Amino acid sequence: MSALLESYAAGRWFRADDQGAPLLDATTGEEVARISSKGLDLGAMTSYARRVGGPAIRELTFHQRAALLKELGLHLMADKDELYALSYRTGATKRDSFVDIDGGLGTMLSYSSKGRRELPNDTVVLDGGLEQLGRGGTFVGQHVYTSRPGVAVQINAFNFPVWGMLEKLAPAFLAGLPSIVKPASQTAYLTELVVRRIIESGILPEGSLQLLAGSAGTLLDELTVQDSVAFTGSAHTAGMLRTHTNVLHGGVQLGVEADSLNCSILGPDVSTGDPEFDLFVKGVVTEMTVKAGQKCTAIRRVIVPEAIAGDVVEAISARLASTTVGNPADESVRMGALASLEQREEVRKAIQALRSSAEIVYGDPDRVELVDADAERGAFLSPVLLRASRGAVEPHEVEPFGPVSTVLTYDSVEEAVELAARGKGSLVGSVVTHDPDVARSVVLGAAPWHGRILVLDRDDAKESTGHGSPLPVLVHGGPGRAGGGEELGGIRGVLHHMQRTALQGSPDMLTAITGRWTTGSQRRVEDVHPFRKSLAELRVGDTIASAPRTVTLADIEHFAEFTGDTFYAHTDREAAEKNPLFGGIVAHGYLVVSLAAGLFVDPAPGPVLANFGVDSLRFLTPVKADDTISVTLTVKQITPRTNADYGEVRWDAVVTNAEGEVAATYDVLTLVAKTWPQEG
Amino acid sequence: MSALLESYAAGRWFRADDQGAPLLDATTGEEVARISSKGLDLGAMTSYARRVGGPAIRELTFHQRAALLKELGLHLMADKDELYALSYRTGATKRDSFVDIDGGLGTMLSYSSKGRRELPNDTVVLDGGLEQLGRGGTFVGQHVYTSRPGVAVQINAFNFPVWGMLEKLAPAFLAGLPSIVKPASQTAYLTELVVRRIIESGILPEGSLQLLAGSAGTLLDELTVQDSVAFTGSAHTAGMLRTHTNVLHGGVQLGVEADSLNCSILGPDVSTGDPEFDLFVKGVVTEMTVKAGQKCTAIRRVIVPEAIAGDVVEAISARLASTTVGNPADESVRMGALASLEQREEVRKAIQALRSSAEIVYGDPDRVELVDADAERGAFLSPVLLRASRGAVEPHEVEPFGPVSTVLTYDSVEEAVELAARGKGSLVGSVVTHDPDVARSVVLGAAPWHGRILVLDRDDAKESTGHGSPLPVLVHGGPGRAGGGEELGGIRGVLHHMQRTALQGSPDMLTAITGRWTTGSQRRVEDVHPFRKSLAELRVGDTIASAPRTVTLADIEHFAEFTGDTFYAHTDREAAEKNPLFGGIVAHGYLVVSLAAGLFVDPAPGPVLANFGVDSLRFLTPVKADDTISVTLTVKQITPRTNADYGEVRWDAVVTNAEGEVAATYDVLTLVAKTWPQEG
Repeated sequence: MSALLESYAAGRWFRADDQGAPLLDATTGEEVARISSKGLDLGAMTSYARRVGGPAIRELTFHQRAALLKELGLHLMADKDELYALSYRTGATKRDSFVDIDGGLGTMLSYSSKGRRELPNDTVVLDGGLEQLGRGGTFVGQHVYTSRPGVAVQINAFNFPVWGMLEKLAPAFLAGLPSIVKPASQTAYLTELVVRRIIESGILPEGSLQLLAGSAGTLLDELTVQDSVAFTGSAHTAGMLRTHTNVLHGGVQLGVEADSLNCSILGPDVSTGDPEFDLFVKGVVTEMTVKAGQKCTAIRRVIVPEAIAGDVVEAISARLASTTVGNPADESVRMGALASLEQREEVRKAIQALRSSAEIVYGDPDRVELVDADAERGAFLSPVLLRASRGAVEPHEVEPFGPVSTVLTYDSVEEAVELAARGKGSLVGSVVTHDPDVARSVVLGAAPWHGRILVLDRDDAKESTGHGSPLPVLVHGGPGRAGGGEELGGIRGVLHHMQRTALQGSPDMLTAITGRWTTGSQRRVEDVHPFRKSLAELRVGDTIASAPRTVTLADIEHFAEFTGDTFYAHTDREAAEKNPLFGGIVAHGYLVVSLAAGLFVDPAPGPVLANFGVDSLRFLTPVKADDTISVTLTVKQITPRTNADYGEVRWDAVVTNAEGEVAATYDVLTLVAKTWPQEG
Repeated sequence: MSALLESYAAGRWFRADDQGAPLLDATTGEEVARISSKGLDLGAMTSYARRVGGPAIRELTFHQRAALLKELGLHLMADKDELYALSYRTGATKRDSFVDIDGGLGTMLSYSSKGRRELPNDTVVLDGGLEQLGRGGTFVGQHVYTSRPGVAVQINAFNFPVWGMLEKLAPAFLAGLPSIVKPASQTAYLTELVVRRIIESGILPEGSLQLLAGSAGTLLDELTVQDSVAFTGSAHTAGMLRTHTNVLHGGVQLGVEADSLNCSILGPDVSTGDPEFDLFVKGVVTEMTVKAGQKCTAIRRVIVPEAIAGDVVEAISARLASTTVGNPADESVRMGALASLEQREEVRKAIQALRSSAEIVYGDPDRVELVDADAERGAFLSPVLLRASRGAVEPHEVEPFGPVSTVLTYDSVEEAVELAARGKGSLVGSVVTHDPDVARSVVLGAAPWHGRILVLDRDDAKESTGHGSPLPVLVHGGPGRAGGGEELGGIRGVLHHMQRTALQGSPDMLTAITGRWTTGSQRRVEDVHPFRKSLAELRVGDTIASAPRTVTLADIEHFAEFTGDTFYAHTDREAAEKNPLFGGIVAHGYLVVSLAAGLFVDPAPGPVLANFGVDSLRFLTPVKADDTISVTLTVKQITPRTNADYGEVRWDAVVTNAEGEVAATYDVLTLVAKTWPQEG
């Protein structure tokens, strides 16, 4: 008998106290492993996650968490070969495994990178700008995101045992949440191997990740307000989860990514000779055959102009005919097996249902020619293309989770959009067209029904990642039938795990709470110029209040001549007086900020290494000749970089005139050394 | 018999074909109106909304919708007196009605203002920045929000018949959705009056707003994927809505704002003599008595340090003792009636439940002294304060929806946070403290359990809007028991009604679809300088490709001297060479953008009126002495203002050196006349 998979629970590997159910090789039918969660203490797992894992993660800043994800991703990259070897047993070809294994590790690395670049080196995220709630400026509002003190339960589908885990784990971990991963049984042996390698590495804090191999049993009974469940799988199971009392009445958050009858639309502008025709055909065949069509993002509905439908069917069929099916480990094979014989039976039933309004135009559900494989023992299925009659219902309702697509036809762009909408909400749609007007009509019409839409043409084809590939930086999920959830999407996927709260208070209180200087709160002016302070010494609120400088007409004229910016408002009194906004000669905005820099800078070498940018510069009151300006520069946010000996300092800059009117506001961005003089 | 309320359905006022149920004056018990929806065709209402209302709204840009909200808000302001007069009959005092009526109209005006300032003058919203999906720049991603072609059903609570409708209507309308409003029966006569005035005004497009007066019956049966339900009311009803098949399996989006056991925490730093002590006491009493405590945001749990609890109880009791109860129309009365006798019975039951672990320290649930009112006929109730024993369970579970609060005590800040969390998710919490460390600990600890947290102290008290007031610019809603929904929060409340979609394609396609110039897409260089074009002539993609200019060492030295910005990297060769980022003298960033302006400007008077700002300026490659720079300026986005003869033009600016390396990227913001020469 093969090995019983273990769960990683409450800090140790757990072996069930029965023999478990067998998991069979998709190609050979041999037993790969056995699985059972009998005797597993689910309450101990959730409480361990909350008590040990969560607090350990939340002691780290976002940047520290991101650094661990990178370390882990690179560590696992070194173990890829054994993952690929085991992956064949799921029926996956090498190409399929690339999507799962490299795709999963790439997602983790992408999250690491996004976390470092787009989140603060802190544990709280500010959302949006400051809201002035009172005229006097003593009462302001700021939205923040904080980490939930709960556990993220992740219930994954069988088709991507590696990616499915990592694409949920990475954003949850960045968000400060410990994860309990429950893979689908059929391919859980591959997930278990990855978890084993992660735990062995010791890179993630203990308790960050637990594995539930086997039935989830009463896991949802253990969940409460701060916990969440991210589910990928069938609409049927999703429906059961939705009716659990802890979801209905206990505040457990449930995100679902379920059935999706994704479509690809061929634009009416495309003829058989166009490159878009080939791109379309190739895209459909790729989506039918990668992972043997067992992808929630695969194209199920092929929507084409009526006039060209025959050509499309012919071209797809020809391409399918050259797709070899068989042993996924054989390099000449393009399409492997379905995950299991049961899965194949499901797909055959779906094809049968589709046949009530569509005819098979390619393939035979009961026969397939195989390379290096046994049709009796392996879960092989021929790719099957159907063509639906006009008005067919089933193609919009039945999801064949295998190498199966149905061709539907349309007469107008409006009808194409309407057909797309009949999927009742999809993860992804694509439109293949080189006509911008077609693209605009289809995309804006179909967007409310989709989580992602790809526009494919000759211009982006070379770099396109294709219809079916979710990307870590783009939202994955869709409305309606697709489950209504959202995953990934860069930092969006992190924030879904956090709680947004509107804070109200005085500016000083908001500064104390958020760690970021809030307009209106105290400024600290000391004898030492803040440009002389390293990150170790600099504090939020440190301020430079500059000396004044009078801007003369000569300054303005000289600046115009020197820079070449002779815009009439700076040079031609008569014309400037007619300008409705100025009513006379004004200083260049660029002159104002240049002079302001001259007023606040401390010129000698020191910890401030560079000004690398300016944000949100607004010119509010024009500066006229002989106006006197001064500038106040205050440390707003300090972001040490984890992998450099300097960090970023964001300064709040306000330029005022002698009457106290605000001439300009902006943020100055500088790089500042962590210590000064720099060590090493 | 009094009048039967009418529904506004499918373009006409509908009267039920029965006599309806009576709605009684909260103070006198007299019949105010009758209500019934018998015979109302709910399917016709939803299909009218989708067919007539939705398309009419979505023909307008966000700015046009915002302008209508403003017009409507100002129009209704003129009708306020009759609304106030009718509002007394709900049991509301003038102060209570202010929150409901002026609060509702103010919310609509706030949304109008936010819509004009923070949304584009378009029908699509871009979400986040461009994602480079391929190294070559031919395949990019952009998230967008589009309007759902559905209907927004709004089911409101009885306590705010005006605000409750308008705070849901305004963001839904801005988002492009028609609304069907179903007010709670008890106070529906006031909602009906407002809807009548809105319909009479003819300001909103027909079909934007329908009213369902009476039972919602089978309304949810009519809803589908693109529809949403926003519900405010009891957890019990919310639970029923959550199990409707169209919510569970049909993709209908449900937002819930339900029970909430909000707390207010007195900081351990506060003594009886401090201003914060009085602010705390006053806050609790206000929340107990405004709307007779019938507010989902009212303070139910008063969490105070054990040592000071006696003083707090005494001070609250003293203040409650001076709160006059009675006829809400009497100006000497501070607290009116509950909405109905049934409602009072519910509150009495809740008080009874609370008494199993708390004792009443102020008030008698069965007796109250009244001004100008009849205790037999009106739904009056004394304010009731309880003090709980340590470890009490009921105060964290039972919501008395009336003038009732319970005092709980703590020993440490951690315990205070833990008590707050025992509410299992609340709409709002407050902490009254003048100690920033206390504020930070309490707020960050309690934030995951709250949608909003107020920090109150002597500094913000004067301008503070108080614990109980949701504000249009801040999120309203909370996790867990509070329902898990989010409303308001400025534009956040609009985007909840829209679908987010990740678009992938070539830059040219994304420009065509979004109407905003996408980095990498075509630039149009013509003979006429774009500064000579008015908004009527200017097109996204119009480009200035400037002549080159060499930046000499003399330029840098002169700029340093002229502006006073003598930072060593511009003036001291030896020191600059040691700078790890520059390795030699570099031009000031401000010099680079100043010279760039000189290169792209067209100086003569013309349609470009002013440069009002710069966004996202980043200095990428340092410009060294004798480097030659040039600038490319491209129209990125055009935003005509609805109420001015000019609009905003955002230009993409890229400064490159002779090697084609990018020295700086930024957006230049200008105001451009709609026509030139300007008319009028």
